[in-house]
Amino acid sequence: MLSCIPFSLSDHDGDWKDILLSAWISSSFGAILLQTTRNRKNNELSKRDGYLIVVLGWLSMSLFGTLPYIVSGAIPNFTDAFFETLSGFSTTGATILEDIESVNKGILFWRSLTQWIGGMGIIVLAVAVLPILGIGGMQLFVAEAPGISPDKLQPRIKETAKRLWYIYLGLTATEFVLLWVSGMTFFDAINHALTTMATGGFSTHNDSIAAFSSPLIQYILILFMFLAGTNFTMTYFGLHGRFLKVLKNEEFRLYLGFCLLISLAVGLVVYGLGQDSWEQSFRDGAFQAVSIITTTGYITQDYTAWTPFVTVLFFILMFVGASAGSTAGGVKIVRHILLIRNSILELKRQIHPSAIIPVRFNGKAVSQDIIYNILAFIMIYILVFAMGSIAMALMGVDFVTAIGSVATSLGNIGPGIGSVGPVDNFAHLPTGGKWLLAFLMLLGRLELFTVLILFTPYFWRKS
Amino acid sequence: MLSCIPFSLSDHDGDWKDILLSAWISSSFGAILLQTTRNRKNNELSKRDGYLIVVLGWLSMSLFGTLPYIVSGAIPNFTDAFFETLSGFSTTGATILEDIESVNKGILFWRSLTQWIGGMGIIVLAVAVLPILGIGGMQLFVAEAPGISPDKLQPRIKETAKRLWYIYLGLTATEFVLLWVSGMTFFDAINHALTTMATGGFSTHNDSIAAFSSPLIQYILILFMFLAGTNFTMTYFGLHGRFLKVLKNEEFRLYLGFCLLISLAVGLVVYGLGQDSWEQSFRDGAFQAVSIITTTGYITQDYTAWTPFVTVLFFILMFVGASAGSTAGGVKIVRHILLIRNSILELKRQIHPSAIIPVRFNGKAVSQDIIYNILAFIMIYILVFAMGSIAMALMGVDFVTAIGSVATSLGNIGPGIGSVGPVDNFAHLPTGGKWLLAFLMLLGRLELFTVLILFTPYFWRKS
Repeated sequence: MLSCIPFSLSDHDGDWKDILLSAWISSSFGAILLQTTRNRKNNELSKRDGYLIVVLGWLSMSLFGTLPYIVSGAIPNFTDAFFETLSGFSTTGATILEDIESVNKGILFWRSLTQWIGGMGIIVLAVAVLPILGIGGMQLFVAEAPGISPDKLQPRIKETAKRLWYIYLGLTATEFVLLWVSGMTFFDAINHALTTMATGGFSTHNDSIAAFSSPLIQYILILFMFLAGTNFTMTYFGLHGRFLKVLKNEEFRLYLGFCLLISLAVGLVVYGLGQDSWEQSFRDGAFQAVSIITTTGYITQDYTAWTPFVTVLFFILMFVGASAGSTAGGVKIVRHILLIRNSILELKRQIHPSAIIPVRFNGKAVSQDIIYNILAFIMIYILVFAMGSIAMALMGVDFVTAIGSVATSLGNIGPGIGSVGPVDNFAHLPTGGKWLLAFLMLLGRLELFTVLILFTPYFWRKS
Repeated sequence: MLSCIPFSLSDHDGDWKDILLSAWISSSFGAILLQTTRNRKNNELSKRDGYLIVVLGWLSMSLFGTLPYIVSGAIPNFTDAFFETLSGFSTTGATILEDIESVNKGILFWRSLTQWIGGMGIIVLAVAVLPILGIGGMQLFVAEAPGISPDKLQPRIKETAKRLWYIYLGLTATEFVLLWVSGMTFFDAINHALTTMATGGFSTHNDSIAAFSSPLIQYILILFMFLAGTNFTMTYFGLHGRFLKVLKNEEFRLYLGFCLLISLAVGLVVYGLGQDSWEQSFRDGAFQAVSIITTTGYITQDYTAWTPFVTVLFFILMFVGASAGSTAGGVKIVRHILLIRNSILELKRQIHPSAIIPVRFNGKAVSQDIIYNILAFIMIYILVFAMGSIAMALMGVDFVTAIGSVATSLGNIGPGIGSVGPVDNFAHLPTGGKWLLAFLMLLGRLELFTVLILFTPYFWRKS
């Protein structure tokens, strides 16, 4: 929070006192917690502690994260402030701000920073912590992640986290410099660098990226959205020159191919509308395709106005997501690959009922346990989507907005369809709807199981 | 087809010659096929023959079934006639007729009859044939279905089919009599009896069941829609006085509870609109809830105009379906029960990774193979829904209509949402869209695998 103060001071907006107060309240609570728990004798963390720490960590961050908004009066309403903060820390990017540009710079920087911190948290969670808890689609990579093995967890997690954070920080800094030299202001460049790498999508402008007409800036953002949606383990290998390993990875290849294919398809549609040059058509197509696939949520055009095909396609893409082990939300491509392969093989099993036909990924047979786990994940994902949509509609939200807002929150994307579309915001939703969507953002961000497990009797029963 | 002639004659519409010609063409082809294949020495049917016979049977029925429409000129366009016929034989009930009441009685009877024949076929398929092929959700009941065991298939299938058809015929006759004495005309009563028991939903009136204001008629229809959506094995037990066995069946209990719960919820919504008495509100609520759950598709009111809650609820119910072993389409409740149980247990497995925790159904552990099979079914169902929606949108259909028409066709329901809603029809869709939806009806009706397996190399390769 303190890092927001320089922006507030340079803006002469007077918010620095409010930010300082928020920081003081937060750090006081932190100090008390630290004081009361540091002398516990048993420092061993169990799996159950892991679930609880992750969920409570995200929740308390989001709770204290509302302070700068509330104290400064930028978002006086608690529901709205909590929605905005959780949308930040979950790297969703849905906003209740109707006029972003009227918000002071210090607070705007805090808004972007919540996404960057959330993305940083999720990288470590997805690559280092969740696989050990058996969650998140990265179980498949456990053996591959830099420095992870199930023994001696804590030092390893620290080591892995440090490496991943260097990559995250390095990419953010690189993007910042590139955006700055390409013509963004210093403030815009730093904010957009923070929210791209988190696949968050908060912008400092009401028109999102449409405010920057420079093609170069848009291409830079496409590239970094793509990188942010790449498995950071792959980025680690790539930075160490092991390109063959990256190119051999089936998820990376499908992610790359998928981005190219959808970009091309949407670009063709935009070009077919006949209003833009082929360069701008394919740039707009690629920008929106990569923005949705990576669950970033930046906007250059109102894509729901293009054709129904794009709306349906993007709605379905909200359920796809990018790579496991990235900052992207959603189901993730690796889960889809495994399940689609398994389903096709089931047809083969039907013909040859006695044969044992395992699903293969990156050349190895995938254990039944992992397939089961992923299947349960998808089922719960769909169930939560269905129940969430019914609940939103119960609060009077129309059909398209109900399914659109739930899909985009659960997938941590940002813009939805209907009245929460790319050129709208979430301010007009009923209070209950905002709380529900905030819960869904948390659920989606923490890969469902981490949160839901706390609601089962199995978690609380002594084993 | 010949059975339609009396209705045509009594109507003095002159269609009887066209129907006779259609019957002659169909039986000629049948006779040639019979003649050319009856002397084959090897009469043993393999599993592969089974898949092929089922799919080709449904397709050729639908092809020859177009004849009365085309020859009489009631539906001169081949695409439309094929859509209407497949919508009949698949017991979907989606129609391209813009003015049903202008169609002559002989042809209208043929339209209703296609549904009844389709329902008859599906009962035998679902209860007796598909479980042997390892498809359809009734694998769980294989041991329970009257007279089924994997040895000596053909005589058993014949025996089972006979028993089921007696029930089907008996229930249809009973419903016909009840509807007739309750005030429907003879013609309306027989047509609606045919299309209720098939959970088809074709009506002889433009306003569907809204044309009959008698509460008694509507209650009779609710009851028989419910019976048609009940597993016919349970009906068989019920008719033999084994009520305890029926009440102990988990799928039946959930189906019953589900119908009651949704009826009540929708009834409350309708009552809350404040335009109808409580009796009519709950009747309308129950009618539409049972109509959608059982995938019948009769309409008494434009439920999409009630509230967004009902639209979202009914859209999601399109993916639920009624009981396995009934004439209802969709995913079926038993599959949902097993998958939801499995997903919840997965959270338990997460906490106790070394424990083996099977899913239980009707008190017995369900084998992993069946869970795998059902999971693949759902994944393919969702995948087909997603691809189908994208394809419909590509043809220029709007978002809500695209997802609504695909969901209703794949689930064999009938009415959708958007421009194919309860008070609309499918006439205005593009030709390509009609063919796609017809294919989806067949796919849904034959439980996906039966059709899709023909498109895999595994099927055609010699083992």
